[in-house]
Amino acid sequence: MPAAAGSADPDPLITGVQDWQRYLGDGVDKRPYGLPSKFEKHIVRRDVGWLTASAESSVNFTPLHELDGIITPSGLCFERHHSGVAEIDPGSHRLMINGLVDRPLVFTMDDIKRMPRVNKLYFLECAANSGMEWRGAQLNGCQFTHGMIHNVMYTGVSLKVLLDEAGLRPNAKWLMLEGADAAGMNRSLPLEKALNDVLIAFAMNGEALRPEQGYPLRAVIPGWEGNLWVKWLRRIEAGDQPWQTREETSKYTDLLADGRSRKHTFIMDAKSVVTNPSPQAPLKYKGRNVLSGLAWSGRGSIKRVDVSLDGGRNWQTARIDGPVLDKSLARFYVDFDWSGQEMMVQSRAMDSTGYVQPSKDELRKVRGVNSIYHNNGIQTWLVRSGGETENVEIG
Amino acid sequence: MPAAAGSADPDPLITGVQDWQRYLGDGVDKRPYGLPSKFEKHIVRRDVGWLTASAESSVNFTPLHELDGIITPSGLCFERHHSGVAEIDPGSHRLMINGLVDRPLVFTMDDIKRMPRVNKLYFLECAANSGMEWRGAQLNGCQFTHGMIHNVMYTGVSLKVLLDEAGLRPNAKWLMLEGADAAGMNRSLPLEKALNDVLIAFAMNGEALRPEQGYPLRAVIPGWEGNLWVKWLRRIEAGDQPWQTREETSKYTDLLADGRSRKHTFIMDAKSVVTNPSPQAPLKYKGRNVLSGLAWSGRGSIKRVDVSLDGGRNWQTARIDGPVLDKSLARFYVDFDWSGQEMMVQSRAMDSTGYVQPSKDELRKVRGVNSIYHNNGIQTWLVRSGGETENVEIG
Repeated sequence: MPAAAGSADPDPLITGVQDWQRYLGDGVDKRPYGLPSKFEKHIVRRDVGWLTASAESSVNFTPLHELDGIITPSGLCFERHHSGVAEIDPGSHRLMINGLVDRPLVFTMDDIKRMPRVNKLYFLECAANSGMEWRGAQLNGCQFTHGMIHNVMYTGVSLKVLLDEAGLRPNAKWLMLEGADAAGMNRSLPLEKALNDVLIAFAMNGEALRPEQGYPLRAVIPGWEGNLWVKWLRRIEAGDQPWQTREETSKYTDLLADGRSRKHTFIMDAKSVVTNPSPQAPLKYKGRNVLSGLAWSGRGSIKRVDVSLDGGRNWQTARIDGPVLDKSLARFYVDFDWSGQEMMVQSRAMDSTGYVQPSKDELRKVRGVNSIYHNNGIQTWLVRSGGETENVEIG
Repeated sequence: MPAAAGSADPDPLITGVQDWQRYLGDGVDKRPYGLPSKFEKHIVRRDVGWLTASAESSVNFTPLHELDGIITPSGLCFERHHSGVAEIDPGSHRLMINGLVDRPLVFTMDDIKRMPRVNKLYFLECAANSGMEWRGAQLNGCQFTHGMIHNVMYTGVSLKVLLDEAGLRPNAKWLMLEGADAAGMNRSLPLEKALNDVLIAFAMNGEALRPEQGYPLRAVIPGWEGNLWVKWLRRIEAGDQPWQTREETSKYTDLLADGRSRKHTFIMDAKSVVTNPSPQAPLKYKGRNVLSGLAWSGRGSIKRVDVSLDGGRNWQTARIDGPVLDKSLARFYVDFDWSGQEMMVQSRAMDSTGYVQPSKDELRKVRGVNSIYHNNGIQTWLVRSGGETENVEIG
């Protein structure tokens, strides 16, 4: 804890003069677009390498253990793509709306930016987040177990406004969203969701979408799995049934123990994770400490987060701090004293519908262990007496 | 507006195949820390060059006309410094609390991060924002007339918690905050404000403070002029009266018409600006358009923003969209049709205390024209029939 000042043996870092007090720093013309300090260079998104065949069809994970608050910095956002990042000239980008509509339309980016805008902070979570953990503790770090998520403020146009321009026919029940990347990523979206809260966004965290987040245009499907949030969006087709695309048949279905598959499992259920301590962020000090974590629900807002330090025997309610918004990350803290005892740290989220995050074993009883997707079970970190922290499994 | 699809003369940008659909894009390992698209390279902070003697004691202005929503991207935040950007090794940084306290203390960065954290979104506005406009319309762009402002989510520790550790003596009434930059920037802060809502922040928008925003530690003084938000914070001294530093005597006082000066004018009154259209962002199309702008108040939250298109003769209430938070920017819109007529565009903010943003002439009647600081008068943009937009003065 803080040292007493003015002692007989003063801290040379207080009494001395540092270089940054002695010399002028860089001037303003050196940083037209700013970057983090050179002392933060280790804080980056990371691929695990072995997960996919190539970097063009892979994942960069958000370093959750190095972040705080509820905004994910745009430079550290999780990314997943299927044919690499499309580098699109916005002047040549078009969005077409066709299919079961009265007036098939083609929008330029300027056309879209002349329509009424809305601003919303939403989490995006990949359905495969924590997917490696179905069969037991695998990955040593919340960046890898839970880092396929980000939370940014979007600016865009309500999809309902765009569809109203085109005029939906009465038999339209589903939409197909298609990307302009080389994969031509596409997914089917029920019309009811599309007319409820879906945005077609061109900005994130105040500026244009980043290329790896779909620049210049992406779908924002609040609370639903990230794969539906089609990036580099070029076409929306209205139809009377789902398209049965690769990404909703071969992928993004949940294989159950009896061999049947759950399909169209869109909603991301309530979930949470302790980001500090965690394997990449061990405890360094005894005494006063801050336990920190994130909670979210695709069904609404977070109402409460409980934390256990003894593997689920005793629970205390965490302090949620910062805005608590619908379908957005919430930040929670437990301020505690650590005497060096071994701990089994867990967190459990409750949302505005009353849903309580289940244990991994409760989840496995219903879903088996064959799935990759929709693992929202309670995470356990073992904190050893030296502070080192590991991913462990206690059901 | 959007073109009809499927016509006899189809858009080759829809029917053709673009390079980004034909070839793989970059893989995930190429962007451990992401950056904007190369098509957004023109969106940068800018110095005006002539304002100060050197780049190390100058200003970079936020490009408000290119942003949306209420979050300022960290890479585009306004910056002002007096001896350049201190480049501080956080392992060697210390915060001392001394003066009229029972226990003078020295905190490491780790000490501070082990104390209870809070997360808040606040605007920071330089007292000199719009300062050139006291004597008439000067600068052609809201980046330069209003861009000494940013709005980010901070994570930090309540200053009250730090002061409680040190134990304030009963005669302590003021604090002096001092930076570790070569200027040793310092300001006096009334204790009442310090104990109310001041934060000592180490993170912004989810990640560590940027160097030009005070990495690794800065003061956050909600609603008060930016010069008080001491960056690279190294010392807080408690005393019984203000220190009368250069920055609160020679600077940051408001010279009135009768030769007296207003001193300790800390609070930033309610203000607003239309960011689009504006001189750097002229109207490009007749028909459907989006007028967009920002409003804020150092006394509370924004309750209403009115917009005039005819120089203040007629007003309409704008649509505020996105979170409306205390001492944070609020985003407003007016969706309108433009027939090509000349317009005099204005916005007028009202805050939760009932305060209404004054006209520039109303302000001059009270304050004269000698000041640099605290100009929150209503801004007027003249939109010509071709869409070109200019900074003009109509009182």
